[in-house]
Amino acid sequence: MTKGKVTLVGAGPGSPDLLTVRAARALAEADLVLYDALVEPEVLELAPRAAKFSVGKRRGAHSVAQETIHVLMIRAARAGRRVVRLKAGDPFVLGRGGEEVLALGEAGVPVEVVPGLSSALAGPLAAGIPVTHRKVASAFVVASAVPAEPFAKLAASLPGRGVTVVVLMALSARAAVRDALLAGAFDRKTPAAIVVGAHTGREWSWSGTLGELPDVVLPPGDEPGLVVVGDVVLVGARMASAIGDARAIQDERMEDCLGT
Amino acid sequence: MTKGKVTLVGAGPGSPDLLTVRAARALAEADLVLYDALVEPEVLELAPRAAKFSVGKRRGAHSVAQETIHVLMIRAARAGRRVVRLKAGDPFVLGRGGEEVLALGEAGVPVEVVPGLSSALAGPLAAGIPVTHRKVASAFVVASAVPAEPFAKLAASLPGRGVTVVVLMALSARAAVRDALLAGAFDRKTPAAIVVGAHTGREWSWSGTLGELPDVVLPPGDEPGLVVVGDVVLVGARMASAIGDARAIQDERMEDCLGT
Repeated sequence: MTKGKVTLVGAGPGSPDLLTVRAARALAEADLVLYDALVEPEVLELAPRAAKFSVGKRRGAHSVAQETIHVLMIRAARAGRRVVRLKAGDPFVLGRGGEEVLALGEAGVPVEVVPGLSSALAGPLAAGIPVTHRKVASAFVVASAVPAEPFAKLAASLPGRGVTVVVLMALSARAAVRDALLAGAFDRKTPAAIVVGAHTGREWSWSGTLGELPDVVLPPGDEPGLVVVGDVVLVGARMASAIGDARAIQDERMEDCLGT
Repeated sequence: MTKGKVTLVGAGPGSPDLLTVRAARALAEADLVLYDALVEPEVLELAPRAAKFSVGKRRGAHSVAQETIHVLMIRAARAGRRVVRLKAGDPFVLGRGGEEVLALGEAGVPVEVVPGLSSALAGPLAAGIPVTHRKVASAFVVASAVPAEPFAKLAASLPGRGVTVVVLMALSARAAVRDALLAGAFDRKTPAAIVVGAHTGREWSWSGTLGELPDVVLPPGDEPGLVVVGDVVLVGARMASAIGDARAIQDERMEDCLGT
């Protein structure tokens, strides 16, 4: 008789305090953690009791096949382990979480799901950009830049204003992303932003226009990133300045307090 | 000299352990919490030190005007309070979070933002529905059913397959939502689901087809809900059964353990 189970946990965008309380608890109780490459090392420290294995994928370099991940989870749960399958962001936003739940269900292994903050929403916010804003955008689209064909079809169909477009896995496909949107109702002057490494402490962002998108020089390294397209990018510039101004005021006050 | 600040916090979809660790900490340290009507009472218990005031809006019945909320936050922060402005879900998904940050920035009040799980993603998952699934949908759209006109424009433009549509504030606008999607590339047989009260302990869900959507008898009460349209609803039925089967197995095991 098994007593094991698998908890599919979303690790959120990066920082360990952006996991949910429920996710942190699942990690604290885990015997085994199977994690993806994009999970920050600090997050793994929330699972002090667990054996931890990277089954990570990054930029298409699959270190462990999806089937093998299923087998590992099923075997460990049947051996009585409390397994956490830890995925960056939310497991159900382009994360193959559904496939894993179905495989576990077919094997009769108990499975729980703990959602996580998706970088599709938390990522833009790291640059001050809200995905919706009254009178600017009352809807948003989240899409993967790859595969290219469904993205191109969707991009060509969207209204050019009133809808925010968030494109994941977008950094190396920026020219294709721009061209697909320009083939639809967007124009070269549509505000656009790039956010890299949101909530990791290695954040980098840029804002400008859709036309400029492919020519932006990115920071070195292979940090993943996303592209945001729409008028909310302009709201983001004002919000970042509001948050920045507030910080500056706080710094001044701190200097006053310290008598410097 | 003020020492106060405002932290804009997303409370997530309902359950208090679905707040982020950072959000729970902000509540624990707060002197004053200004919360919206959709925040669950259990979440407020995370702020034992704080005075708590509802500034809630529900179904268009604004109990406190947006301008007044700004004034309350600014005044309290200037008086040295640690204010948490607590919003259901994520403050930047149709939550007017951006407006509040801008108002605080203009007033020179220090402001921080803590994102929350959006019910747009966590809501479908409460019914087992992933917003993306490989070979089924690589993109999703989140839109408000009100105002009707921008929703209708967006709905008419979308490809009828490969994209999941999540409609918020949708329950009383189901006929308009259906008609707007049918006016585009969707057909009456497109899978559709309704999720009410996700992650609150009062969950209710239905799945069927887009054509049936307006005629579904909803549970009594004014619990908010969302509509999901797309083939992922079919994946959701399989996922819910996987999670359900696993629960059934767990229950059997429990009965074995207890010798019943």
